[in-house]
Amino acid sequence: MGKSKKKNCIVAQSGGPTAAINASLAGVIQGVFCSESFQTIYGSINGILGILNGRLMDLTKRSKELPHFIETLKTSPSMYLGSCRYKLPDYKEDSEPYQQIFQLFDTMNVQAFFYIGGNDSMDTVMKLGHYGKQIGSPVSIIGIPKTIDNDLCVTDHTPGYGSAAKFVASSLLEIAHDTFIYAVKSVTIVEIMGRDAGWLTAAAALARNNYNAAPHLIYLPEVPFSKETFLEDVRHLLTTRNNVIVAVSEGIRDADGHYISATNAAADTFGHSQLSGTGKVLEHMVKKQLGVKVRSIELNVLQRCSSHTASLTDLNESFQLGCKAVEGAEQGQTMCMLTLHRTSQNPYCVNVHFSPVDNIANQSKSIPREWINKTGNDVTPQLLDYMRPLIQGEPALQYQDGLPVYLPIDHLL
Amino acid sequence: MGKSKKKNCIVAQSGGPTAAINASLAGVIQGVFCSESFQTIYGSINGILGILNGRLMDLTKRSKELPHFIETLKTSPSMYLGSCRYKLPDYKEDSEPYQQIFQLFDTMNVQAFFYIGGNDSMDTVMKLGHYGKQIGSPVSIIGIPKTIDNDLCVTDHTPGYGSAAKFVASSLLEIAHDTFIYAVKSVTIVEIMGRDAGWLTAAAALARNNYNAAPHLIYLPEVPFSKETFLEDVRHLLTTRNNVIVAVSEGIRDADGHYISATNAAADTFGHSQLSGTGKVLEHMVKKQLGVKVRSIELNVLQRCSSHTASLTDLNESFQLGCKAVEGAEQGQTMCMLTLHRTSQNPYCVNVHFSPVDNIANQSKSIPREWINKTGNDVTPQLLDYMRPLIQGEPALQYQDGLPVYLPIDHLL
Repeated sequence: MGKSKKKNCIVAQSGGPTAAINASLAGVIQGVFCSESFQTIYGSINGILGILNGRLMDLTKRSKELPHFIETLKTSPSMYLGSCRYKLPDYKEDSEPYQQIFQLFDTMNVQAFFYIGGNDSMDTVMKLGHYGKQIGSPVSIIGIPKTIDNDLCVTDHTPGYGSAAKFVASSLLEIAHDTFIYAVKSVTIVEIMGRDAGWLTAAAALARNNYNAAPHLIYLPEVPFSKETFLEDVRHLLTTRNNVIVAVSEGIRDADGHYISATNAAADTFGHSQLSGTGKVLEHMVKKQLGVKVRSIELNVLQRCSSHTASLTDLNESFQLGCKAVEGAEQGQTMCMLTLHRTSQNPYCVNVHFSPVDNIANQSKSIPREWINKTGNDVTPQLLDYMRPLIQGEPALQYQDGLPVYLPIDHLL
Repeated sequence: MGKSKKKNCIVAQSGGPTAAINASLAGVIQGVFCSESFQTIYGSINGILGILNGRLMDLTKRSKELPHFIETLKTSPSMYLGSCRYKLPDYKEDSEPYQQIFQLFDTMNVQAFFYIGGNDSMDTVMKLGHYGKQIGSPVSIIGIPKTIDNDLCVTDHTPGYGSAAKFVASSLLEIAHDTFIYAVKSVTIVEIMGRDAGWLTAAAALARNNYNAAPHLIYLPEVPFSKETFLEDVRHLLTTRNNVIVAVSEGIRDADGHYISATNAAADTFGHSQLSGTGKVLEHMVKKQLGVKVRSIELNVLQRCSSHTASLTDLNESFQLGCKAVEGAEQGQTMCMLTLHRTSQNPYCVNVHFSPVDNIANQSKSIPREWINKTGNDVTPQLLDYMRPLIQGEPALQYQDGLPVYLPIDHLL
């Protein structure tokens, strides 16, 4: 029948969770099933750390043990293989982890390594790729994008973004229904994730429909935030309506680049600031200056791990990228990340490319200024057109005893 | 062919939103359609205030104008008729609003008034009932329960609770998936609504399954909270596991009855305290005393307005109570609230009664102490058995352009 399968591969996930990152993992596993080159696929537990610590699981075996493995994995939230926030050193300064990784590739006859993640994970893909090239390794090192932040370069959008955007838009709509019931003046501030880019906050605008104009104001990290202008915006709206709903990114900064959030920014391993409390700061500002009823709502981790509001378009694209990654490895692709390219808006259509990871790692993409209105407190129709196809469709989740059925993650505990 | 319908009725909603309160409204409207006594049903906008301010809408007409009105209303979040937090004065001290209300009943040939709400709304039902009796009014005054707090007396449980419980349990499960991916010690504190009763917080325990033991600790308002015991509980668990997930009610209090929440309790119209920040207080406590990574998550208003995770059992029961209320009015029931009575646990079965509202208004039901474990940091299997039937089933939501379709509420704006 087909050629004998002799090679193996490893897949890992890294960075923060999304509702679609397991769909990409499911795609990679499915890709290996369909491949004529690869025999066994191993999952590295907790990102690249699993390879360094010898924590690998046989996904080929596991997928045969559990019923409906691929389908259930596709709709399971967060990261089946766990995550890490580990940054590889420069191999010119410290090549030890690299030697360890490529030795393991060699020992296990691994010919492809797939890393599903965001900007930071692409840094790992890039470094492994360069090291591999230098030592003449034949192992394909391929990145598969994911991030709710939608801030990866080259690709039209990132897997995971559509589902998070759908959660944000649905939640905003439900919050509007919750808010409009009281005939008293009120301000509701909804804080949405997004450290440097406002893509996810912008998705709140998708909640608008023929009866709901909320969010009435949107503040993004792309535009310097002025407390005075913000208060004036809210004050002005309150003259014509009872309830003002504001969508705000956690990452808004003032003209000097200082975060508005209450907590002091503590840098994480990658040097990013961890934020919280932007909504609370605006809440206190409104309470003090405008004296109306005000409430802040932090959407928090549910926006990245809520599988019951996933976008079917997002899950399907994520799955497709996983499958394509395996095809790419068979064709010898390496040091690349899979990217989505929109070829048509109506009907919505995307193509998949393999793009050099050097152009993607450690870079980020903000919302173009022309997709934000002039006064910097709303998005334009072009941005809505860009986002809308990404939240379409609802996956059929399996339920048991009133709760969604997800894949057990006991191997992480 | 049936008797000519000559009488009208009014329905209103009051208190805080739930995902099922519109299902009860849909039931009342459906009940009127099927009734041989009632012709037109009017909705009072913003609770009893709509009657006092002359803001009524013709729901019979509206339901004919919009396609699939009843079915869409059944799954629409929050309150289609708006809400209020208005407390009627004692009629012996100030009978003016009573005179106004019963005059309007008379003018509009209203023979039944249905009030869908919680403890405070039942206070209105009781007062109107007593006043009506005193003046010899034939108008049926009937309460239909709703509250995510599940704290109404006499009834086995309250409409709205099952859907909120399902949201809390699903969210907790997704938060567990989100948390377990990092192989570092961490504590996650999930703050859940519930001022005086811990029913909704207890529902977090439904997230446990064959691979997930979270929430590992549960703190309820029914048990005095000790900071020292809490820290010891967390410290102890961290010796055997990486990630500890805590479900905590916003309303926990110390042995002296003081709220643990950060903000000073500001009383609302009904004298209840408005809380926020309990999760944050515990977060800071853990950070300071145990020095591990810690995050607090406030589930916030989504737990009461999230229709996309509603419980079908809850929606069906809520709808049924609405229908039954109209039957009760036809039979001359008054000064009562509809109550659910569990006649069988397996298969789950409930009967509907009409219970005197005097035994329900302004009272509240806590979790029996024997349904909480001895050490006061978890629930017992009996409580799980009680809750589980209430979250069963998923409604088929209609989606358009990626978002759930809800009934327009432009009449509230």
